[in-house]
Amino acid sequence: MKTLCFWYDFASTYCYLSAMRLQKLAASSAIKIEWKPFLLGPIFQAQGLSSSPFNAHAAKGAYMVRDMQRLTAEQSIPFKWPEMSDGSDGFPRNSLLASRVALVGAELGWVEAFTCAVFRAEFGEGADISNADTISEILVKIGIDPLETLKLTQSPSIKQKLREDTERAVLLGIFGAPSFTIGEELFWGNDRLESAFAWAQIAE
Amino acid sequence: MKTLCFWYDFASTYCYLSAMRLQKLAASSAIKIEWKPFLLGPIFQAQGLSSSPFNAHAAKGAYMVRDMQRLTAEQSIPFKWPEMSDGSDGFPRNSLLASRVALVGAELGWVEAFTCAVFRAEFGEGADISNADTISEILVKIGIDPLETLKLTQSPSIKQKLREDTERAVLLGIFGAPSFTIGEELFWGNDRLESAFAWAQIAE
Repeated sequence: MKTLCFWYDFASTYCYLSAMRLQKLAASSAIKIEWKPFLLGPIFQAQGLSSSPFNAHAAKGAYMVRDMQRLTAEQSIPFKWPEMSDGSDGFPRNSLLASRVALVGAELGWVEAFTCAVFRAEFGEGADISNADTISEILVKIGIDPLETLKLTQSPSIKQKLREDTERAVLLGIFGAPSFTIGEELFWGNDRLESAFAWAQIAE
Repeated sequence: MKTLCFWYDFASTYCYLSAMRLQKLAASSAIKIEWKPFLLGPIFQAQGLSSSPFNAHAAKGAYMVRDMQRLTAEQSIPFKWPEMSDGSDGFPRNSLLASRVALVGAELGWVEAFTCAVFRAEFGEGADISNADTISEILVKIGIDPLETLKLTQSPSIKQKLREDTERAVLLGIFGAPSFTIGEELFWGNDRLESAFAWAQIAE
């Protein structure tokens, strides 16, 4: 069975779009999806950016919000911009905790359900997914014990796994998210999801 | 008749893809295309970049070349990377002269033919379109007098028009190319060409 790796950062708006589309696409193909959370922060830092490119470049950021409004409407999924409790801008959310929980889920078999639930809460409802209480609520909703899981995120092996996967992403030439890899063939952006599937179909 | 503005910089690889697709898309719709050459240089400078983002970020640049290989193959159009005469990298080409010639063409009715011929020479054959001889050859091929045209590019009104159009692009929120606008609605990237057409169809 062919494997397509879906590289995502929980802070990324366009990863939300892809996560919501992946299940359907995967169902209609014989491609196995590997859900790969990683951190864009260190990658953007290496590009000289201290935050998301959408915050560094105001015009690009304003466009992305408009683009997301149009694309979520097309996909018929909700869209609510992340805000702080005082109403100020909450983008990008810190994705470290959610990424570690997802890696626990990858080991225990619920990474897909968790990932989709996090993206839906974050960009569909505006939830603060950097918050442990929010993550706990999401875990409860998908039937996973939050206390035990949050404890596991503090294990050295999970922390190390996230660092290693982020380094692996860099080695694969990944510079943004979502990215899709089939072996060493790289596709960047939600707009390339179908192309990545097509590539996986014909890959050796 | 609805108008879709196609904002392009002659140095941009993805603008090549859109230029090659526009004619066909326009023929099958009742949308008028306005060909708008402008300069990304000042816009990238305002973002703190001294060259193309594809040169500033090596991984992004390497990916773009691979992406272009795949996309030109899909579109069945040739792709040859711009090189200098000594074999060193020729990307991005200086697009100032070609942009001014295109603006002359916009006044005289041959902007589309010229634009497509330049992109084909640049990225289909690797030609150095910053060179006046190359531009002259292209003009001859499309049946335009090169000497008279090159003289017109030196007129203050053409130079001023390019500056004004670039400023207009910034006011429209444009931060990269290709971009497409229908009124003030902005679409960025070759991947949004179909969406831009769809928007133009339903726009008031």
